[in-house]
Order: sequence, then structure tokens, then C-alpha cells
Amino acid sequence: MTPELEARFRALVADRDALDGDAAAPKLVEPRGLYRGKAALALTPRTVEQVSAILALAYDNDVAVVPQGGNTGLVGGQTPSPDGAQILLSTAKLDRIREVDAGGALMVAEAGVTLQRAQEAAAEAGRLFPLSLGSEGSCTIGGNIATNAGGTAVLAYGNMRDLVLGVEAVLPDGRIWNGLRRLRKDNTGYDLKHLFIGSEGTLGVVTAAVLKLYPAPRETATALAGLASPQAAVELFRIARAHAGPTLTGCELMPRIGLDFTFRHMAGTRDPLEGPHPWYILLELSSPLEGGLAETLETILGEAFEAGVVEDAAIAASGEQAQAFWRIRHGLSEVQGHEGGSIKHDVSVPLSSVAEFVTEATAAVADHAPDARVVAFGHIGDGNIHFNVSQPVGADKAAYLAGWDAMNRVVHAVVARYGGSVAAEHGVGRLKRGLLAEVKSDVELDLMRAVKRALDPKGLLNPGAILSETRP
Amino acid sequence: MTPELEARFRALVADRDALDGDAAAPKLVEPRGLYRGKAALALTPRTVEQVSAILALAYDNDVAVVPQGGNTGLVGGQTPSPDGAQILLSTAKLDRIREVDAGGALMVAEAGVTLQRAQEAAAEAGRLFPLSLGSEGSCTIGGNIATNAGGTAVLAYGNMRDLVLGVEAVLPDGRIWNGLRRLRKDNTGYDLKHLFIGSEGTLGVVTAAVLKLYPAPRETATALAGLASPQAAVELFRIARAHAGPTLTGCELMPRIGLDFTFRHMAGTRDPLEGPHPWYILLELSSPLEGGLAETLETILGEAFEAGVVEDAAIAASGEQAQAFWRIRHGLSEVQGHEGGSIKHDVSVPLSSVAEFVTEATAAVADHAPDARVVAFGHIGDGNIHFNVSQPVGADKAAYLAGWDAMNRVVHAVVARYGGSVAAEHGVGRLKRGLLAEVKSDVELDLMRAVKRALDPKGLLNPGAILSETRP
Repeated sequence: MTPELEARFRALVADRDALDGDAAAPKLVEPRGLYRGKAALALTPRTVEQVSAILALAYDNDVAVVPQGGNTGLVGGQTPSPDGAQILLSTAKLDRIREVDAGGALMVAEAGVTLQRAQEAAAEAGRLFPLSLGSEGSCTIGGNIATNAGGTAVLAYGNMRDLVLGVEAVLPDGRIWNGLRRLRKDNTGYDLKHLFIGSEGTLGVVTAAVLKLYPAPRETATALAGLASPQAAVELFRIARAHAGPTLTGCELMPRIGLDFTFRHMAGTRDPLEGPHPWYILLELSSPLEGGLAETLETILGEAFEAGVVEDAAIAASGEQAQAFWRIRHGLSEVQGHEGGSIKHDVSVPLSSVAEFVTEATAAVADHAPDARVVAFGHIGDGNIHFNVSQPVGADKAAYLAGWDAMNRVVHAVVARYGGSVAAEHGVGRLKRGLLAEVKSDVELDLMRAVKRALDPKGLLNPGAILSETRP
Repeated sequence: MTPELEARFRALVADRDALDGDAAAPKLVEPRGLYRGKAALALTPRTVEQVSAILALAYDNDVAVVPQGGNTGLVGGQTPSPDGAQILLSTAKLDRIREVDAGGALMVAEAGVTLQRAQEAAAEAGRLFPLSLGSEGSCTIGGNIATNAGGTAVLAYGNMRDLVLGVEAVLPDGRIWNGLRRLRKDNTGYDLKHLFIGSEGTLGVVTAAVLKLYPAPRETATALAGLASPQAAVELFRIARAHAGPTLTGCELMPRIGLDFTFRHMAGTRDPLEGPHPWYILLELSSPLEGGLAETLETILGEAFEAGVVEDAAIAASGEQAQAFWRIRHGLSEVQGHEGGSIKHDVSVPLSSVAEFVTEATAAVADHAPDARVVAFGHIGDGNIHFNVSQPVGADKAAYLAGWDAMNRVVHAVVARYGGSVAAEHGVGRLKRGLLAEVKSDVELDLMRAVKRALDPKGLLNPGAILSETRP
């Protein structure tokens, strides 16, 4: 980029909002350190008009732009290339909550609002914004939309896609699309918001959204159950769903090794159950109504005990105890980092195949790398398992991670047998774009390319994310 | 079309599946008689491969194709042009339910399966497929997907879009896209199924879908309440939602005139309440659990009585009585036909503006056509009102209907003030394509055209539906 052009970009925002050098550095490496980028300039605009001006200037000068939210993404979708030719556009300072309408059950939030702030603003209005992720303190609504974020509340409330009524987005040529609809039903042509949701910043930059709010829970009941097998976990899910119906708002699978890691590396955690069990389910029931969830939870566990599905269980006696159970679950990603290298798989399979998948993928890994340690956990009611594999104790981390692709092939082969997804909730980004050719038909890849060309004909927005071709 | 080309099309299906003349006639006029088409040939293929072959041949020879499901659509989206140059492709004989997986909570149904058959197949497996419409006996899953159908269960379960896990579609050039995913989470790139859902057959022909199933209700409680105003109706909705939470599965607004029409024209209907009331709400609570819905309903009505929101109410004492309440609601569309011409508006506004919209639009119509009779009813919890206007008693039907566009302008002006939609659940088709230029920004129309060009570059699929340009 010429100094003249750089100066023109800088002039589009306040001085403090054009970063380079050390100020830009934290935005150029993603959380796992798998991708390190370099940017000609990192811009943090504060208005949609500034975003528009930046993209228009980039379009006129064929400059590629990589959008970024809270920089918590796990697939490198937010990291510019290492050649320093791209502009990093952070939406972090588009951080106003424009409106909370409790009666209308909606909120209008800008892209840079953190998920936690959105949750808190809803709670202050006596409402619930249900999306919940480990990174909610720093991930942003814009990033949640760009990646169609999932998390622990999908079972009852759906993915981010299901929580968005409308979006405002800036197109690659700088035009602003105001799609901030507040409607529950609108069939006036193609539903364009669904194109932007989950497109990882490759079709446009989402700058604001209308989000659905739900009644706040007034009653919650939480339990941790120890089980012998993934089959038992699926059976417990089935029993819980049958008795709790839509009040079953959490059903998270955890393996014993995950709890061992937690107790070893997270201060203040302890085992809620007396002895160890191969598997655990964290069950949460919640409801905006008052009405006997504690009894329902007891019924569920009683039936599960009687059927031999559950070995032991603890019901949280207080909100603090429930939070302690959840701290174990939310800490699972982090504690793996203390046990050396971890090769990740964010996969999903149909609900009826979850137990078989976990069993068979574990066996396949045991064949492939006998001393590697499978840490399989996640959202069993969504069929979404984080099938991570930690290095053998004492192994060399770099050498182990060099086997990333080979391990992926072993696990993804089992995913494929069950018609599953190799990118269930984290997205494709740069990390998994090479996998798409293996799991998508030519027809589907052609359709995706056609959509990309139609919306971003110059291929300037987040080039290399999702689709391998840098320019279409 | 040359006789040779016609013969080639005929040869792609069995003899009995290529219709013309009287056999094709019922498929060439839509239910309100607003559009009458003519087709070179009406084909009713039985397999996705036949659909593929038809579209490939059409593509190679630049023949336009109009897809059709159950021919129940209300906006002319399923009717070919009057010039006889197009092929009508009915998916009605793609009518296999390929699979019902109760444990996996899904069903794979072909496009021509009627909604009622899908509901029944789910019920036989102890599950619920929740979509419910007046035309469910004849509308099809393919049409429901093409139009993103709504209906009376959207409040609790969402639109058709929310009930589809995956689709199989044939592209305009004949290629088959197998997107029959069975996953609750899948972020492997652009979510293409959302492009086809609601695209009214202009981007591809959906031939099958994976549908979500829900636990079957085990308990239902139903009431009909008489109220003084739309404001009271909204307040009753608020009270019901607060007490019933997700068990509130129906909340339908009806006006007194609608009940008058019903008792006059539908045999076997009678007023469940003693005196007349200006407005009515049909409330339905249902749950897959057993647990006191009757008490909840009494609590709701008790609080509403105390607050002066409800004037009178009847709780259904049996399933038959509940059905009788629903028969009134489901008959509302039909009975208007017996009262002369009716000018229709299928609109939605944000939840917080429903009462104001009904009041103001009614006043605007009274100004515009003092003796016309407003019949406003629908899904108050979705903000979706069928704001229909029947002709004055004794007026000339044709003369009244000649004022369709002028009446539309009056009502849609109020919709626009509230940021509403002029096509909430019935779609755009040919009837409303002219309205889009008034309610969509240029940016949005450009995006829609870009999508159309990307997927249907020759403009051969359902030309003239949604977008006015016959060829892009």
C-alpha cells in the first residue's frame, strides 16, 4: 500500500482508531497462536458510516479487508495474511446498545457489543438473551453473527442464527444494507440476513443486529450425574427431555479426564461426587415460570437411577453450587492447554448417532495413537462434540501437533460415516477450508462460490476464509 | 415450443405424468382465481432424477419452468404465464415419506407430501410436526418450504424455515444438490438451505427435506375469550405468555364480524359465549408434559378478568369443544368468500405495535371506504395480521375489487409507519412483486437480483415471481 493510500484510510477514522505496531499487535494473532498475521493498518471505526467509507475506499483500490470482532475465533477466520497487504477492520468500537425493547422482546445492538454486555442489558430489562459461550466476556455480537455461534443454550434456544431478527451490514463496495427488521414473520423475498449469518465476514461486515429476547428464567435446577458410558449419557438426555420438555435448557457431556484436568489446573474446583465415573452429564432445567423444576429433576434422576443409567448424582443446593458445576464445564477448553498439545475437532452428528460416534472415534484414535488422551465433551443434545485429543503424557508438543492433519483424518472419517459436520459451531475460517473439498459436493462448493462472486465480485472481503481461493 | 421439444419433455416421465388440456387445467388457476395460466405442458415427475432431467432439458433449450406444490398459494407464485410458453412442474407426485426417525427427532419427506400427511406420520411415531395451516390437507412440504409457510404454530415452533434441517434441491441447470443434513449444528460455510427456503421456486426446485420433529403434546388447554379492543388482546397475550411461557402454543385474534360470517355461512358452528364482543382471542396451551395446564389457563383468565382485560371467556371442556373453537378460527378465510369481494393484506408489524396498527389501519380504511368491512384476524403473538377488507353489503364485487391497489396503499402506508412487512407469511409471488420497489431499499433489491443471477443466470425458474424482471 502506498503511503498516500494509507493516509487516506487513516483519515477516515479518528487518530486513535488507526492502529499499527504494538497497538495493533494483539489483534494480529488468534487465541491458539495458530495464525499470526500482519496488517497494513488496523482500523477500529465507531460508526457504520466509517465502516462504509473504509470498505468503499478499499473497493476502489482493490485492498483486501479482514473483519474482526472480539478476536476469540478458533479457526483463524479473523486473522489477516502475513504479507501485510490487508487492512484489519475491527468492529470492537461499534459498541452501542441502541435500544432494549422489553415489551417487544428485542434489542438492537451494534457489532462490537460483547456477548456478556448483551446478556446483562437483557437481564436489566427483565429479559434473557440466551446465547452463552465460554468466551462471552470478550466475544462480540458481530463475531457471534459472522460465525453463527452455538454454545450451551442451543438445545433450548437455537444457534445465533435463530436469535437474530435483522442485521445491518456494509457490503464489500461500501454500500450499507439496513436490514434491521423487527418482525417475527417477513416473506418479502430472499431472506438475505441468513446469507450474512455464518458467512465469517466474507460477504459483508455486519455492523448491528436486532436480537430476540426471551422471558428471564425465574427458577433453575441443576445436577451433575456420573455415568458409565456415552450410551448412558444419551439415555439420560432422552429421559430428561421426556420429563422436562422445553425446560431442559442444558445437557452437557464431560469425560472423567476433563474433570481430572480441571481439578489439577483450576484453583477452587472440587469433585461434587464421591467416586470417579467414566462420564458426566451436567443437567440444567430452567423456566420463566415457577413450577416444581426441583421435583422434575428428582423424577428424572430417580428414573435414571432405577434404569441403571446413572451411577451417582449431585443436585445443586444453591446458585453457588450450580455455578461451581458450570465452572467445571466452562473451564474444559482452557485446562487442556496445561496438558500439552491438543488436536481439536469441533464436530456434530445426528442426535441418534452421538453415542456410537464417541465410542467409535475413541477406538479409532486408540488405534492411531495409543497413548494420546481423548477429551470428548460438549453439547450432547445438539449432537455437537468437541472431540479433542491431548498429547501423550511427556510427549513433545511440537512433534505431537505435527500430526494434526493425520489425527483429523482419523476422526473425520468417523464423522463422515455418520453424515456429520467437521465444523459444527466454530466455523471454517482458515483452519478448515482445506477440509471442505472432502466433505462438500462439487455442486455445493459451486453454489458457495457463486454466492461469494455475487456479493463480493472482487474477492476483497476476508479472502481465504471458508473458500480457499483468495480471489474468486 | 416445437413438437419435437415437447416430445422430448414428455419422454422424461411416464405417459400419465405428462398432462395437458383438461388434465392440466386445475393446476393452471390459483385458488382465488386471480391468476389463470397456460402451460405448454404440465409434468408431474415422481423422482428427483426426473426433475433433474426436466430442468436440464429446459436449461439447454431456454424453456422457463414454473414449479408448483399443492397449488394453495395465495399470491400467484405457482401459476405459469398466459402465453403457454412455460412448463408447469408439479412436485405433487414426489410424495414419499422416506424415513421417520423418532429417536433422532426428524423425518425425511419428499416435496409432494401434504402437510397433513407429514403431521400424521409424525403423530404415528409419537412425535409432533408442528406446522399448521388452514390448507394443510392439500398444501405440500415443498410448497411450505418454497414459501416459508407460517400458520398458527409459529408462536411456539417458528416458521417453516425453523423446522427444516436440510433440503434436496434441483438447480436451474438440472444439477441435484443433496443438502439433506440431519444436524442441529453445522457451520461448514454458507447455509444454502436458507437461500432456497422462502425463494418461491425462483432459485431451485426443492424435492425433499429433513424436518425437525418435536415431542407430542400430552396435555392441551383451550379457551375462547371475548374482549373490547386490540389493546386488550395484546394485554391478554402478555398475561398468557407470562404465566404459560413456552406452553403458550396458540394465540389467535378474531374480530366479531369474522364470527358473524362464520355462524352465517358455516354449518354446525355456534357462539361459545353468551353475548357478542368486539374482539376474541383463541388461546391454546399445550405441553409434552403432564402438569396443570388447566390451572394455568384459569390463572391467566382470572388475572385478565381482574384487570378488566377480558369481558367473558369459555374454557373448552373437551377435545371436541376445543376443535369447535379452532373450526371458527380456521374457517375465517373461507367464510369471507360468501360475503362478496375481499381485499387482502397479509402484514406483520413489531410485537409492540400490533394493537396500534389494527386501530390505525381500521381508521384509515374507514376514511377511505366508509362502508367497507374490516375483517382483521390472525397471529397476534407473531405480529402477523390478515387485515382483510370485505366489500360493503350489496356493493358490486368487480367494482369493489377494482379498488384493490388503492386499498392496499391505504393499509400498507400504516404498515410502513410501523416498519412492518407487506408479505408476512404468504410470500410475494406475482401478486405483490410490484410492492417490493416501495418497501425495499435499492441496496436490498440489488442484493436479491445478484442472488437470482448467481443461482439462475438464465432466469428460467419461475420468472416473474418475487422480482418483476422476467429475465435478469
